[in-house]
Amino acid sequence: MSEETTKRTDVNDLGEFGLIEHLTKDHKLVNPSSIKGIGDDAAVIDNGGLLTVISTDSLVEGIHFDLMYTPLKHLGYKSVVVSLSDICAMNAIPKQVTVSIAISNRFSVEAMDEFYEGVYAACKKYNVDLVGGDTTSSPRGFFINTTAIGQVSKEKVAYRSTAKVGDLLCVTGDLGGAYLGLQILEREKQIYLSSPEVQPDMKGNDYIIGRMLKPEARLDMIKVFEKSNLIPTSMIDISDGLASELFHISKQSGVGVWVEESGVPIKQEVEVQAIDFKIDPITCALSGGEDYELLFTVDPKDIEKVKYMPDIYIMGEIVEASAGVKLHTKGGNVHDIKAQGWKHF
Amino acid sequence: MSEETTKRTDVNDLGEFGLIEHLTKDHKLVNPSSIKGIGDDAAVIDNGGLLTVISTDSLVEGIHFDLMYTPLKHLGYKSVVVSLSDICAMNAIPKQVTVSIAISNRFSVEAMDEFYEGVYAACKKYNVDLVGGDTTSSPRGFFINTTAIGQVSKEKVAYRSTAKVGDLLCVTGDLGGAYLGLQILEREKQIYLSSPEVQPDMKGNDYIIGRMLKPEARLDMIKVFEKSNLIPTSMIDISDGLASELFHISKQSGVGVWVEESGVPIKQEVEVQAIDFKIDPITCALSGGEDYELLFTVDPKDIEKVKYMPDIYIMGEIVEASAGVKLHTKGGNVHDIKAQGWKHF
Repeated sequence: MSEETTKRTDVNDLGEFGLIEHLTKDHKLVNPSSIKGIGDDAAVIDNGGLLTVISTDSLVEGIHFDLMYTPLKHLGYKSVVVSLSDICAMNAIPKQVTVSIAISNRFSVEAMDEFYEGVYAACKKYNVDLVGGDTTSSPRGFFINTTAIGQVSKEKVAYRSTAKVGDLLCVTGDLGGAYLGLQILEREKQIYLSSPEVQPDMKGNDYIIGRMLKPEARLDMIKVFEKSNLIPTSMIDISDGLASELFHISKQSGVGVWVEESGVPIKQEVEVQAIDFKIDPITCALSGGEDYELLFTVDPKDIEKVKYMPDIYIMGEIVEASAGVKLHTKGGNVHDIKAQGWKHF
Repeated sequence: MSEETTKRTDVNDLGEFGLIEHLTKDHKLVNPSSIKGIGDDAAVIDNGGLLTVISTDSLVEGIHFDLMYTPLKHLGYKSVVVSLSDICAMNAIPKQVTVSIAISNRFSVEAMDEFYEGVYAACKKYNVDLVGGDTTSSPRGFFINTTAIGQVSKEKVAYRSTAKVGDLLCVTGDLGGAYLGLQILEREKQIYLSSPEVQPDMKGNDYIIGRMLKPEARLDMIKVFEKSNLIPTSMIDISDGLASELFHISKQSGVGVWVEESGVPIKQEVEVQAIDFKIDPITCALSGGEDYELLFTVDPKDIEKVKYMPDIYIMGEIVEASAGVKLHTKGGNVHDIKAQGWKHF
């Protein structure tokens, strides 16, 4: 009558990736239609015709969001966007989404209407259909699970495991903003909790806070790739921070990565805020997470295509595995990049 | 800084189906590949080739399961099975599954190993691949979300909305067992809580308790249909109770349903236990839920095919919508069937 066995290993000893690997390492795919299973941004299924790409994400109250400063409409929007981002990371076009929620009775129908306003706003923006979900009770807390489904041709699908030595390392958009947005929101929450009469001061930080509360999936970039006939040799979305994603590509492709600090795109307002919080801006980019930009590699023959694409930055190169994952700093030093550097701070 | 708006409607006023309908009624599908959205056992997607069928289910600790009497291995097995059952209800063959979990730190790695032992046992039994999922923390409680993916040809997919007047109403297996299994487990839990020295008495109830703790999806029946070249005119799986599913078919197909009580398959041991609990056995079948059998309709020309199929029971007929949803009792009376009769008792 108990869920525990005699030996007890704390799940935190393994971490999320360690736990997933531990639980799934012996599972072999048996169906010919299962092209790609666990270990990429999305699973890939071949039922004839185009490939079907599927990814699922969970958002848990108190872990992934705090309703003190997260409007429900933004939360609905973000819930959809984070799973669409995984579909884009396969170089696929998202077409459908399912949204499952478990809610306690402290949520009203009106509160759920607000949440779904955000869900539908994302569906409209990205032209995807809400095709299912499960709605259940929860004894406490708000749990969200979204599954996104997309399509891509066999020739265009982009995995994490196919980067080659000599490829250029590229990234869309800019990094580090979402993490600093979270820091500002947390700071204002603490001020509000200790002095409720003080109004929160978010002025001038719209961009940074927006990166946290209302991220976007880079479907626009997938369409630019399509138009330019560019197929990335590998791709991943930046949800856990640049460092973590670099290690996924390095490990799964069996390659090393060389990153030029001067090539990592960080907006000036992000730099200013980082310094205000006494954090090195490059650290925000490497370990911040939740930026939902795309990290990808291209064959050197495609350099002319990416060089002039808007909002794309070449920031390094794929090298031999033995060279490791390195950062060449603006000061001329070379550092080992550590996976998820200060996630545990 | 709050998730509530001024007006407050309790979600319980709408109920699960009411809330889903309220939240999704204005959403129109825009992608040609979205064949079927919300409102059936699964969504249907056409990316060329075979149709891809997708369904998602949530299981929440304290709502859908109680770890006092649910072994984690059984829970892992059941989590997969409930979503495979939805795929079967589309007359499709399940091929892939994703399992997402949110767990608090009271669960150890060994506990998760047990849970995944059950997940993999179900994958093996049903020949499906685990292709993804998300593993996250939860401040408290255990939340599970499974998404199953299957394939079916355009000619064979079975919806809830296509039953026709004159069709025979059929069901697989037997009904009411899972509900009584839950009653026995709850009774023994109460006895254990008040007198921990008393050993639980489950003797002779293996079948009934197994129906609750370790249900099966009727993939075997989908294969029998395939072999016999039988395509149900409509189909749904029985997760919320026969009455609730009859109303789904009635409403979505725009038809009435006539059910013969004498045709509703109830095992003798289920009858005996029901009487022990002072519940009418037909009530267990109509409102019990979680049996995961298939309710389906067939064209009368196919009667010879279903008549001799093992474990299939003809229990009624599809009639004009104006005739409503009726039960013809063994005593010769005709009663209105009420959707989800005593779910709120």
